[in-house]
Amino acid sequence: ELAQLSANLFAVGSLTGKRVVITAGPTREAIDPVRYISNHSSGKMGYALAQACIEAGAHVTLISGPVHLPTPDRVQRVNVTSALQMLAASQQALAEGCDMFIATAAVADYRPAAVAEQKIKKQGDEIVIELVKNPDIVATIAQSTPRPFVLGFAAETQYVENYARAKLEAKKLDMIACNDVSRADIGFQSDDNAMTVFWRGGYQKLDKANKSLIARQLVALCVQQLSAINPAIAHNPS
Amino acid sequence: ELAQLSANLFAVGSLTGKRVVITAGPTREAIDPVRYISNHSSGKMGYALAQACIEAGAHVTLISGPVHLPTPDRVQRVNVTSALQMLAASQQALAEGCDMFIATAAVADYRPAAVAEQKIKKQGDEIVIELVKNPDIVATIAQSTPRPFVLGFAAETQYVENYARAKLEAKKLDMIACNDVSRADIGFQSDDNAMTVFWRGGYQKLDKANKSLIARQLVALCVQQLSAINPAIAHNPS
Repeated sequence: ELAQLSANLFAVGSLTGKRVVITAGPTREAIDPVRYISNHSSGKMGYALAQACIEAGAHVTLISGPVHLPTPDRVQRVNVTSALQMLAASQQALAEGCDMFIATAAVADYRPAAVAEQKIKKQGDEIVIELVKNPDIVATIAQSTPRPFVLGFAAETQYVENYARAKLEAKKLDMIACNDVSRADIGFQSDDNAMTVFWRGGYQKLDKANKSLIARQLVALCVQQLSAINPAIAHNPS
Repeated sequence: ELAQLSANLFAVGSLTGKRVVITAGPTREAIDPVRYISNHSSGKMGYALAQACIEAGAHVTLISGPVHLPTPDRVQRVNVTSALQMLAASQQALAEGCDMFIATAAVADYRPAAVAEQKIKKQGDEIVIELVKNPDIVATIAQSTPRPFVLGFAAETQYVENYARAKLEAKKLDMIACNDVSRADIGFQSDDNAMTVFWRGGYQKLDKANKSLIARQLVALCVQQLSAINPAIAHNPS
């Protein structure tokens, strides 16, 4: 049972000696010195996961977009703004050693093709902003060699399971956690969450709960899958 | 001398019985359910002005975009997200009675022409977002009949005075406060500010200081100009 699994794994410090890198929050993509494109990510899920990983004994690097949250004790926080900065920080953290990469950040898919050096003056009644695709951070990390265990997230408003399984394969993730952001009572700005977690050959629903509890359950599932891939971790000394 | 003027005006409760409406913070313009365009306004200047107006005896309505600031005591706060919502709230506040309108909000000049009902899926390497012009809130209020005393703001990165005087005339403002947001040590996210305030026939530089002091000096200048336009306010009973 999940609650018992979670309790057991935390009791034995199941991530002791492991290095976990977590991305969190939104990215902001500059249009000019004052304007940007962003999204409603609060960063709460990523920060809760950082806390849970610390409690499980891990060394945690938290690569954070602009949020209004305190850094959990013992977490090494790296502040970034744009997707390009978040990718660079993630690759640097990977180079320094990373056993598990958890990508909760709501990275902007696109950024303005050009960033104006001066504030853009109001012009005609209609303008267009040209956007170019940002790098896919979690896919880049998941396709690195050597690679850590990779947990991705999907925030969908429809066809949740289909998109989640397609992302798991396309990006070569080990696990994907998926919540339906069209539900008003959970998700982005909320303190609660509910999600379904998919991996190859299985899934687990996590009922609505506060993000701290969801985070501990997620970490327990990660450790379970990580030990299935690499049995050595199951013998991690407590 | 400005400091003395400021001290005197606050001592006599120079806005007692007056209704002040202040807009503050950024607006967010939705692209889809999770993405938006916004800007770096922290709302600090507007909130400091709300506090200063309360101290000067006014009844204050603070129409606020999404910010992370506590509401000053005795201020009536109205939360809004988009420019269209901020305009509607401003017009409602005007209909309820408004002697002075202070437009500190960094209102998005443009909003996406269409808001997608579902999260937009990642598509090709490049996309464009079509934007349409938002209503000009401060100009709309300044051109209403009857109209309050109107203080506008300009955040420019170049040709500061030229733009400020052109805005004062084009929008029919009574006063405009202008800071150079290209200075890294003041402005949007900072606790300090420095600005130059322009009105027809004069201007006043406000040296770098914390936003609370700048706010009191600005309110003092507003009262001075308001009393020049409408001498009755100079005889406001203390």
